[in-house]
Amino acid sequence: MSAPIPDRSVARALPPGSVIGIFGGGQLGRMLALSAARLGLKTHIFAPAGDAPATDVAAAVTRAPYEDLEAVAAFARAVDVVTLEFENTPRAALAAAAPHAPTRPGARALEVAQDRLTEKTFLREAGVGTVDFVPIAAEGEVRSALAAMGGAGLLKTRRFGYDGKGQARLKGAADIPEAWAEMAGAPAILEAFAPFVRELSVILARGLDGALRAFDPVENRHAEGVLRESRAPGGFSDETAGEAIRLAGRIAEALDYVGVLGVEFFELADGRLLVNEIAPRVHNTGHWTLEACAVSQFEQHIRAVAGWPLGASDRHSDATMTNLLGDAAADWAQLAAEPGAALHLYGKAEIRPGRKMGHVTRLAPRGTGAP
Amino acid sequence: MSAPIPDRSVARALPPGSVIGIFGGGQLGRMLALSAARLGLKTHIFAPAGDAPATDVAAAVTRAPYEDLEAVAAFARAVDVVTLEFENTPRAALAAAAPHAPTRPGARALEVAQDRLTEKTFLREAGVGTVDFVPIAAEGEVRSALAAMGGAGLLKTRRFGYDGKGQARLKGAADIPEAWAEMAGAPAILEAFAPFVRELSVILARGLDGALRAFDPVENRHAEGVLRESRAPGGFSDETAGEAIRLAGRIAEALDYVGVLGVEFFELADGRLLVNEIAPRVHNTGHWTLEACAVSQFEQHIRAVAGWPLGASDRHSDATMTNLLGDAAADWAQLAAEPGAALHLYGKAEIRPGRKMGHVTRLAPRGTGAP
Repeated sequence: MSAPIPDRSVARALPPGSVIGIFGGGQLGRMLALSAARLGLKTHIFAPAGDAPATDVAAAVTRAPYEDLEAVAAFARAVDVVTLEFENTPRAALAAAAPHAPTRPGARALEVAQDRLTEKTFLREAGVGTVDFVPIAAEGEVRSALAAMGGAGLLKTRRFGYDGKGQARLKGAADIPEAWAEMAGAPAILEAFAPFVRELSVILARGLDGALRAFDPVENRHAEGVLRESRAPGGFSDETAGEAIRLAGRIAEALDYVGVLGVEFFELADGRLLVNEIAPRVHNTGHWTLEACAVSQFEQHIRAVAGWPLGASDRHSDATMTNLLGDAAADWAQLAAEPGAALHLYGKAEIRPGRKMGHVTRLAPRGTGAP
Repeated sequence: MSAPIPDRSVARALPPGSVIGIFGGGQLGRMLALSAARLGLKTHIFAPAGDAPATDVAAAVTRAPYEDLEAVAAFARAVDVVTLEFENTPRAALAAAAPHAPTRPGARALEVAQDRLTEKTFLREAGVGTVDFVPIAAEGEVRSALAAMGGAGLLKTRRFGYDGKGQARLKGAADIPEAWAEMAGAPAILEAFAPFVRELSVILARGLDGALRAFDPVENRHAEGVLRESRAPGGFSDETAGEAIRLAGRIAEALDYVGVLGVEFFELADGRLLVNEIAPRVHNTGHWTLEACAVSQFEQHIRAVAGWPLGASDRHSDATMTNLLGDAAADWAQLAAEPGAALHLYGKAEIRPGRKMGHVTRLAPRGTGAP
């Protein structure tokens, strides 16, 4: 399947001084804003009330709920392009912005990423493997679906899941009532367990002109549904890396995507790759690119949505990125003193258990392996 | 000469969330603000009216003239430490801030850096070589001073000089009237030409605890008094690099300096090093550290003034930094498309001839030479 010929050109690049509007004020928006500044671009953050560390580094800020569509329209009129750091940005907000500024990525990418059933159906139609899945509308449907999967699976809400939230593990029919209660009445999906040997991800950018650039795939370690560590290079083969990039590119083209896209994979024992999920935004598993590449995932996303040429994505160093969750950020002084460690703190006012407070990236010369 | 034992400890480090006040709103302040954000620190920019690109990335901004000492005091009360990006910050402003917040670097460093005569006298007293110099208070003093230097030299205003401004080259007595007119009646200094074979600089940080960390010295190329290019490594010997770092450390200790200090040297044919000038701030010849080191000069300065441990200063890559002056910034789209080039644009509203609009850093694997 080849890509449609894009009708867009880098001649439509936004010049330095233009304003990038970003839905969301968290750490991803913050790092996007810092990268936009490097290119002489301004940012305008749209964030609801509450802790929004991106607002500390933006030229302009709108504090309003996503449901305030007049505020959204005013925000979109004040910027040159609208993007997002948060895949659960309500689609009504994106629709309210669209008449006033280009929205990149567009509504289709959000539609797919916001609903696990839509996502998996889209992936299958694009010819990309996923775990087996069954939509679940009522508790009564779980038992037979679970039996068909061999008696074990993951029950997940179709919408608003991230970092392991809205999920329950089923090891047998006895777990059904508690798992269903966890869904709180929301439409759900039952997914088979993937007997994976490794988790990996691809951070890929697609430019306004259709150009594709992938960073080197990384190996990831999660615990309790939350990313702990990403390593570049990972322990997989070059063939696996190439196949993961090819699949990610196919997804980006099928979505006519503009911006940076994160694609998480399971690698099975036989080498097959299944897509776990896609994130229509910069991604936690790409933070290492800030230090190990001349152009980071954040700058790459800004370049894509501003219609600039994408940067080269090769890494000059091997790297390991470790998340600082909750109290781990209290060790900032020791981490700051560690030679060669690049410390990032997100400026969040409150430390909460498991909250992403920062990360640290450790570098090693290229070819020596992730440290 | 050994350093005095510092009575300060990193136990007095400002925690994440603290506010760094910065006098000056130019590109150096902007890059300081971006680096502070990486560490979870906020910035508050104090800048007079006019183009101030740092204000686009700061959590708070005071727009007032440096002479408005009430505004300065209010600014200092609102922050946890005061630093600067501009060596010509009026000392009265620093003095007005000092009762309300620590000022790092302190008044002595500004006093020395703001007056070429004070600077050279200080350097000589610290045992650091400089070119020969003679203070000039009136036009009538130039002729005999010039004759004593062999008939050639540089006439410079003592104060407010940077990027080749307030300077005139004298190749003989006939040039005196025009050169003197250039001084516009200001006290001046006549400096001998240095018969240098190379220009180099050291970017050195001194922590609140007295720790010293120098980045690798770089070789610089100026034209018309303005930096064009810095290369790491430079073409000088390891011995020369070591001596330059030793001299820069001596200067920092003699000033009881806290923060990043730039020291520019002339290397003579016999290998001797003369200090050309010192800058009590982050320095254009240190911009390459943003890409080639885990902790940049900007982050290092923020760490020093916040009382944090300094980062390791070794470079992981060789690098060449090229300034984008005036119209050169109009080539941003080509530069953005160059593989491996890290492009920085400063967000200045107006392109003027010779104005520093941005820079580009090109990397090469360590040990292969500056690209």
